[in-house]
Amino acid sequence: MKMTMIEKLIAAKVGHAVKPGDIVTVGADRVMLDDIMMPFIAAKFEEMGFQEVWDPEKVVIICDHLVPASQVDDIRAYKLSNEFAAKYGIPNLHRSDGICHQLMTEAGYVKPGDLVFGTDSHTTTYGCVGAFSTGIGYTEMAAVLGTGEIWLRVPETIRIEINGKLPANVMSKDVILRIIGDLTAAGATYRALEFTGDTVEAMSLSSRMTMANMGIEAGAKCALFAPDEKTAEYLGIELTAAERALAGDADAPCARVLRYCAEDFVPVMALPSNVDHVAAIRDLEPVAIDQVFLGSCTNGRLEDLMAAAEILKGKHIAPFVKLIVTPASRKIWEEAEANGTLAILSAAGAMITHPSCGLCCGRTGGILSDGERVVATNNRNFLGRMGSSKVEIYLASPKSAAASALTGRLTEATC
Amino acid sequence: MKMTMIEKLIAAKVGHAVKPGDIVTVGADRVMLDDIMMPFIAAKFEEMGFQEVWDPEKVVIICDHLVPASQVDDIRAYKLSNEFAAKYGIPNLHRSDGICHQLMTEAGYVKPGDLVFGTDSHTTTYGCVGAFSTGIGYTEMAAVLGTGEIWLRVPETIRIEINGKLPANVMSKDVILRIIGDLTAAGATYRALEFTGDTVEAMSLSSRMTMANMGIEAGAKCALFAPDEKTAEYLGIELTAAERALAGDADAPCARVLRYCAEDFVPVMALPSNVDHVAAIRDLEPVAIDQVFLGSCTNGRLEDLMAAAEILKGKHIAPFVKLIVTPASRKIWEEAEANGTLAILSAAGAMITHPSCGLCCGRTGGILSDGERVVATNNRNFLGRMGSSKVEIYLASPKSAAASALTGRLTEATC
Repeated sequence: MKMTMIEKLIAAKVGHAVKPGDIVTVGADRVMLDDIMMPFIAAKFEEMGFQEVWDPEKVVIICDHLVPASQVDDIRAYKLSNEFAAKYGIPNLHRSDGICHQLMTEAGYVKPGDLVFGTDSHTTTYGCVGAFSTGIGYTEMAAVLGTGEIWLRVPETIRIEINGKLPANVMSKDVILRIIGDLTAAGATYRALEFTGDTVEAMSLSSRMTMANMGIEAGAKCALFAPDEKTAEYLGIELTAAERALAGDADAPCARVLRYCAEDFVPVMALPSNVDHVAAIRDLEPVAIDQVFLGSCTNGRLEDLMAAAEILKGKHIAPFVKLIVTPASRKIWEEAEANGTLAILSAAGAMITHPSCGLCCGRTGGILSDGERVVATNNRNFLGRMGSSKVEIYLASPKSAAASALTGRLTEATC
Repeated sequence: MKMTMIEKLIAAKVGHAVKPGDIVTVGADRVMLDDIMMPFIAAKFEEMGFQEVWDPEKVVIICDHLVPASQVDDIRAYKLSNEFAAKYGIPNLHRSDGICHQLMTEAGYVKPGDLVFGTDSHTTTYGCVGAFSTGIGYTEMAAVLGTGEIWLRVPETIRIEINGKLPANVMSKDVILRIIGDLTAAGATYRALEFTGDTVEAMSLSSRMTMANMGIEAGAKCALFAPDEKTAEYLGIELTAAERALAGDADAPCARVLRYCAEDFVPVMALPSNVDHVAAIRDLEPVAIDQVFLGSCTNGRLEDLMAAAEILKGKHIAPFVKLIVTPASRKIWEEAEANGTLAILSAAGAMITHPSCGLCCGRTGGILSDGERVVATNNRNFLGRMGSSKVEIYLASPKSAAASALTGRLTEATC
């Protein structure tokens, strides 16, 4: 029987064939709890009467949304994260190492074929290494913490085939934004996205991560890339035969297949205030902007910072523009520091913050006010996400964000 | 006639001899306006009916307290700073370059013998280069902006003589904290502090800056160091004969003279919640702390970061402690980046923020909550300064702050 990647992945876990729509109960290979949800998870966990966490080694707690805190109350989440980890013997606690979705793969918590659940919608990110990963609510997480299990309905698959060579000014962010625009925000609801084709095979893990991260913006349950040599190198592992066999069969039945020629992609932005409101930058009026944000679990990786630095090197941002740079993790900060990227960005006028969710979730560093416009590399441009509800957020790639910082206007990267 | 430094300085400006208590009208050589006061200054300036700024070249506007913003309303101050500078043709506007008091000397806005006024109490800082500088309110600043003039009462002088060699674990922060403890918070009200002796002559400009910065914590109107070769080197100028002659006469009449042997100083902290509540660290219970803050116009300079890095190199802070590092300016950030200091601090677990006032004024990055304790290198430990009013703030030197970050307790630096 021909199977898509998600069907193979779940079948391998439950030990029998599955088809879309089947309800199965699965064990979690890893769960991720973030600081912002920790108070709610802890309260529900105790309300449910659990005495212990089913497998403390499989739990990862990450303080990222609220570190460093900008509100007095935010410390509560940090303290509760520390207390919960201590009380239940959870060894994997990150207090200030960066954004959860970056750390889960970077620190080796996820491997191909894993089933991973996290209390954040962008948990789809770990599909970049061929794991099924998805966001769940805090009540569900409390139950998983107590039992180690959760039920799943096997998703239908939308296969997205991309072949050819992307133009130099196009990044994987432009690719996923266009796909979300084509699918619409609800177009992949509860479906698995499966990315294939030589274009995605040629992509770095960082680039794949950007796309898996944003799968949820089309409603997808997960967003998968078959594990390959690049995955193995990134994780520092050898792939097993079972892991290699996770790639979906080319002729497996799918709910939908989208085919793209890489050469057709152009730099795009998601316009205020919906992620699927996507347009080519060359078709936009070059309206003035107030700020640029380079960071987040979507686009705060070394290749993103380096791509921006290449455009900004030896230049200075427009005088009235603020450029906030927030590397996605401490490791990335340290790598970008060591290879000179941070120095280039600072010389260009950037404000470089500690690695965290930061401005993406509007909790610290660079909040915007009524009537301001920001070009941002993160994943959501919803009303009120980065400060006032009267802020206009344009989502873009790191290259287009850097180009816009230079001109102070919505600007397409040219290289 | 024998004169103190402040008497010589004001006499040189008004063109005749002065004595303490004289009221004189002086012209401002430079004024500094910070973002947090800008909305009030702008409103008063227009209310007073001024059409133009008396001398735009002499005005420096610095966005530092609220950049990057953590509150939606904070952008208002940033925007108004930009608008005011544009409207009145003020060329010196710093949007994200660091803390006002650092930039005023670092960027060469102040020279020995100048009369400088700023809308921040720590404007006393520029006494480090032999300028009279002091904080004024926003109404006064509006009047100075319109007229270029302000009245002054010539202060009495408290001369502080320090001779000998400081112990290796003592920094100028320990010196000034002890002096403030001895003087008490009101002990130098409206007086000029004049620091002399071979100990202060041996100090770097950065170390002197820390002491001048904190003069206001004893109520001083200004805190002066005679310009010398170190001053000239720091500012990149040759001292004129008039500038060299600013040093107070050794036998000039003073309100009070304090004499210290450098060898008698020990590492101290100012205990919650008064700056003059000073104790030797070796006499304190080693109570547990939650956070360490290394930064501010008091102690966010390269020598401060390097002193902390020397203690933290190859080690890691205590697990439950957060270490927030905020260089005082973009230039310092870039120097600390280039010489490896930031990398050492990050490896030790620090969160390194963009240069700004940051946590010192409780507006961003690292706010503390009820019952938390912080060891901080800045200048005030007042209730509610860094978040909740139930936070205990212990002021210390960068060395003792670093030592405390390692142990997670109030700890004296040992080298």
